[in-house]
Amino acid sequence: MIIALNKNAPEKEIELLIRDLRQQGFQVTRVPSKHHDVLGLDGETELLDEKRIKAYECVHEVQRITAPYKLANRQYHPEDSVIDVAGIKIGGNEPVVLIGGPCSVENRDQIFTIAEQVKHAGAVMLRGGAYKPRTSPYAFQGLRSEGIHELAEAGRHTQLPIVSELMSAEHLEEFEKHVDLIQIGARNMQNFELLKALGKTKKPILLKRGMANTIEEWIMSAEYIIASGNPNVIFCERGIRTFEKYTRNTLDLTSIPILKEKTHLPVVVDPSHSTGDYRYVESMSMAAIAAGADGLIIEVHHNPECALSDGSQSLKPEKFEKLVNKCRIIADALERGIR
Amino acid sequence: MIIALNKNAPEKEIELLIRDLRQQGFQVTRVPSKHHDVLGLDGETELLDEKRIKAYECVHEVQRITAPYKLANRQYHPEDSVIDVAGIKIGGNEPVVLIGGPCSVENRDQIFTIAEQVKHAGAVMLRGGAYKPRTSPYAFQGLRSEGIHELAEAGRHTQLPIVSELMSAEHLEEFEKHVDLIQIGARNMQNFELLKALGKTKKPILLKRGMANTIEEWIMSAEYIIASGNPNVIFCERGIRTFEKYTRNTLDLTSIPILKEKTHLPVVVDPSHSTGDYRYVESMSMAAIAAGADGLIIEVHHNPECALSDGSQSLKPEKFEKLVNKCRIIADALERGIR
Amino acid sequence: MIIALNKNAPEKEIELLIRDLRQQGFQVTRVPSKHHDVLGLDGETELLDEKRIKAYECVHEVQRITAPYKLANRQYHPEDSVIDVAGIKIGGNEPVVLIGGPCSVENRDQIFTIAEQVKHAGAVMLRGGAYKPRTSPYAFQGLRSEGIHELAEAGRHTQLPIVSELMSAEHLEEFEKHVDLIQIGARNMQNFELLKALGKTKKPILLKRGMANTIEEWIMSAEYIIASGNPNVIFCERGIRTFEKYTRNTLDLTSIPILKEKTHLPVVVDPSHSTGDYRYVESMSMAAIAAGADGLIIEVHHNPECALSDGSQSLKPEKFEKLVNKCRIIADALERGIR
Amino acid sequence: MIIALNKNAPEKEIELLIRDLRQQGFQVTRVPSKHHDVLGLDGETELLDEKRIKAYECVHEVQRITAPYKLANRQYHPEDSVIDVAGIKIGGNEPVVLIGGPCSVENRDQIFTIAEQVKHAGAVMLRGGAYKPRTSPYAFQGLRSEGIHELAEAGRHTQLPIVSELMSAEHLEEFEKHVDLIQIGARNMQNFELLKALGKTKKPILLKRGMANTIEEWIMSAEYIIASGNPNVIFCERGIRTFEKYTRNTLDLTSIPILKEKTHLPVVVDPSHSTGDYRYVESMSMAAIAAGADGLIIEVHHNPECALSDGSQSLKPEKFEKLVNKCRIIADALERGIR
Repeated sequence: MIIALNKNAPEKEIELLIRDLRQQGFQVTRVPSKHHDVLGLDGETELLDEKRIKAYECVHEVQRITAPYKLANRQYHPEDSVIDVAGIKIGGNEPVVLIGGPCSVENRDQIFTIAEQVKHAGAVMLRGGAYKPRTSPYAFQGLRSEGIHELAEAGRHTQLPIVSELMSAEHLEEFEKHVDLIQIGARNMQNFELLKALGKTKKPILLKRGMANTIEEWIMSAEYIIASGNPNVIFCERGIRTFEKYTRNTLDLTSIPILKEKTHLPVVVDPSHSTGDYRYVESMSMAAIAAGADGLIIEVHHNPECALSDGSQSLKPEKFEKLVNKCRIIADALERGIR
Repeated sequence: MIIALNKNAPEKEIELLIRDLRQQGFQVTRVPSKHHDVLGLDGETELLDEKRIKAYECVHEVQRITAPYKLANRQYHPEDSVIDVAGIKIGGNEPVVLIGGPCSVENRDQIFTIAEQVKHAGAVMLRGGAYKPRTSPYAFQGLRSEGIHELAEAGRHTQLPIVSELMSAEHLEEFEKHVDLIQIGARNMQNFELLKALGKTKKPILLKRGMANTIEEWIMSAEYIIASGNPNVIFCERGIRTFEKYTRNTLDLTSIPILKEKTHLPVVVDPSHSTGDYRYVESMSMAAIAAGADGLIIEVHHNPECALSDGSQSLKPEKFEKLVNKCRIIADALERGIR
Repeated sequence: MIIALNKNAPEKEIELLIRDLRQQGFQVTRVPSKHHDVLGLDGETELLDEKRIKAYECVHEVQRITAPYKLANRQYHPEDSVIDVAGIKIGGNEPVVLIGGPCSVENRDQIFTIAEQVKHAGAVMLRGGAYKPRTSPYAFQGLRSEGIHELAEAGRHTQLPIVSELMSAEHLEEFEKHVDLIQIGARNMQNFELLKALGKTKKPILLKRGMANTIEEWIMSAEYIIASGNPNVIFCERGIRTFEKYTRNTLDLTSIPILKEKTHLPVVVDPSHSTGDYRYVESMSMAAIAAGADGLIIEVHHNPECALSDGSQSLKPEKFEKLVNKCRIIADALERGIR
Repeated sequence: MIIALNKNAPEKEIELLIRDLRQQGFQVTRVPSKHHDVLGLDGETELLDEKRIKAYECVHEVQRITAPYKLANRQYHPEDSVIDVAGIKIGGNEPVVLIGGPCSVENRDQIFTIAEQVKHAGAVMLRGGAYKPRTSPYAFQGLRSEGIHELAEAGRHTQLPIVSELMSAEHLEEFEKHVDLIQIGARNMQNFELLKALGKTKKPILLKRGMANTIEEWIMSAEYIIASGNPNVIFCERGIRTFEKYTRNTLDLTSIPILKEKTHLPVVVDPSHSTGDYRYVESMSMAAIAAGADGLIIEVHHNPECALSDGSQSLKPEKFEKLVNKCRIIADALERGIR
């Protein structure tokens, strides 16, 4: 960590700051400069809060050099983490994993029908929302417990592990029992009480990126989960909020090589929520694989016009099958393949 | 609601859509046009999910005309709502309310000292975080229950109602008992499970704007709380995330007249978290009052360099006193005054 | 175009508005509704300024249904436009075109050396900046005329057509004579005086996306050029500005399928300026091709540490060669190939 | 400037970098650290391009400590610059200056009528666009030369100095002759060829903020103008582009105290373009003055429904007069007053 000092700061205050830092166990080197003297810090700076330092009036600016995360950091864990979801491996050099299913579980028939269709098309996991985060209190809020139950049945029936979103720690026990991959949604990426609770399970976590969160904050949320005791974290890029109006969110595929460089964890891409439009899902799926994604999670509905949520971004099963074939071409060309 | 149709959409599919809409109780008028025929809908469109409509392949675009909120909507509730926080009225033509205190409660001495200082300077409520949302799992997470206890004691001692952030429904009972104004933080603005739980109390809620949320989404979160049974919601503008680097967030003061026009609820401004820099807090406080804010919530710390969180944005008590005087000039000139 | 009216608007003002619209040649249909009556307009709404309509106090909202562009619109021009750059075809089903070269032309030796290297690696066009848009007046501003001269020589020597950025209409004659593909930079995407001047040439234009411009505004800038008389426009996606800090810009690859759907013009991707970091250029190049890009423009420098601009995002020639091979795998798998 | 080195960087490359820096005249101090050794630089770092340094593979990160601007920097010019616009002083402790007028000059009658009305209401300068930057090539592009002529006549008639936007260096001579305050629009804030040309005049420049530009980039554009020979620069905040949809742009009033702290130049606010809605102009004008703005530039039209551009954000003269009175209350309370 680097601390730039104000030009005419009183020497007394600077000494106070240096003493404060040394008492916390840091080695401090002072670099003189025409405009701003600089203090260089050596030690466990991950644990130091830069805003506390900035409050010293003698301080012009504080710059962190070392990343603020350790457990998720590839520097301390050079090999790829491969996460096992009910027998399906994600990450490293494992083949690309395709997850398909409806935005919401609506009823038994619907989820069984779609489960069979996505399996037939090539998906190896089944997604489906039971607890739904909806902007409007008047929108369909999901079947909740009943939805988890039906999804689990459909998963057993088709032998597909299941993915569903957890919205509150109070349902963790239910998810622990029935769900294979626990999704944390974009709006809960910084619900820190929920993140801490995830340490109580070893079930793998699919951590979606918050819609206005930097990659560093996202890694910090993974760090929360790992530090709480659960190392099985998979990132899920789902687009960020920008000024662009033709898409629901702006899919940030550059996050894939960045996460691969800075962490050892797998990365899955959600082209459905990011684009918000079924017409762009196929090309973004192909691009994600070319960029190095370890998996895709895609919304599929046999009857999108009647879907109780997010119909406009759902693919019909036949389009999903076409997408799988296109993705296979890319994955095979890169000698990775699709599971 | 307006539905624009694709030019060469098969008439059959359009008929299907129209039938679907009529079955849901909407009156549908079709307007012919060279490029895109348009369907105009009349009825309870607040309850209609536009994404379901967009999933029809014959649909080019869906535009909502009526606001998706009702209970928070000034159209159906023309008078200002004035919210009572332990005897202090916020909103309408009531004088501006100043809330001061540290980012976090750190210990008994600290919170008692600051409580006395902010009261002396002119604050009429005391803020202090006990459960703290921190980006890093290694940062100070707050004193939690003990913090609430000390804050409540300091509030009683100075006769100031207290404000603190609730991060999980599981602590609601504790807050119900001890806290006068329950803050929902930016990161939880769309934690819908938490919003629904707030209907169990009648305690007023200070609902911060999410860092990447539109004003409409923010009003929808208020709608969640009201629809769950608690009408006592106060908005708190705290800046949004943009590309600008000189400030922590971009304070969006235009949200004040917009919220006043579209809703009947009070608006408080947090110039500390938005700017992230104590040097800009005073001018933004004055601007907020000039723009019509009903209150301000400001971080004050007698020793910001030793603050366990957000020291860089905290004012020293003497600066806070100066700020109160400046704000009084504006509020008095506008014949509103400061409480 | 759809005009929603305010609920209690005086009938007289509405009649005035309707008369105004009819006088402009529009057919107007009025759709009654509980909250907001709606006017549907039929006619040449591309030419109507919605802000003028919004100024009527009886108007609640104006929504455009038809796209505001015609010449760039695929609806009126269903076949792909294939643009010829000095014999090299871009767009449609033509093979992917690779453009390589330094950010800036620095001297004769440099540009000749790099020209030979990028040609050897597989590039079919040579890029190089002569007039440089630099944030700081103290940064290297380019060799200007001399740079164009050296670039043209290097292009002739290697038989590569050349690409360079035009910053002012006053240099158009020079570019007309020497440059094969005229680049308009992100900062000039809405320099409308410059766009209009481009109608004076038939040389193809590489139109970069402005860093905070929507896709619709970008298409409107292409429309300006075409309407001025030059139909040879190629889009260049180079990332948009967001809050993310690990990259210089956020590359928006979804713009590729969107532009392909809404317009008939080719799309090239610049992974160097978007990421701002040579480590992410290869994977984003592969992703761009998988998403359907017609070409790539990539910064290459044999000695990036000594580059007079943007060294951090330049690839060394050997890394560029590796990138070309990776891109070829994707392009071949998709049966498109690289030129 | 601070250069953090990669942990396992070869010592040879580091030595090369240090030699390179010393040859450029910098003093270099190396600070050892567990993770990243750091180089501290002393010297004229404003002139150093950090991207060139980042291209060294041994470099982890480069952080600028000293601001990259000198002439606009308050550090080297502690007193406020007061700019004289045809006898009207802006900046320092001078009273707040109000500029009013239509978005575009439409005809002689219109501009004469509005000129008289804004003067009567209290404006001391007249605005009016003659060369208009329009997103669509089909929108009204302004009266150009004729517009400048009519505006100048209206200015003479009412004895109000005039403000108009310059879009191309080729019209500079005309503006030099007729216009008192030359506006550079948001879309041209980084049109560096135009900025350099402004050094040829001493006429004051009203430099609008680009819609996606940081405050630092904005100051750099002022630096361009000053470095080219024209020190008379006034900043104009007009909002930035964000995801918010209820306003055209997000007005960033915190830029006022920031610009006042970092530079010595005056700051004017444009509440019309930022909000894009006449209903929010009054409250944002009052807020701007409370935040320390030196002036306001506001769109006024006697007949907004017939305005050829931006009618929805124009105030009618009677509303403008009401606004002036409200602003006066704030300005008088702050003992600054309105000119």
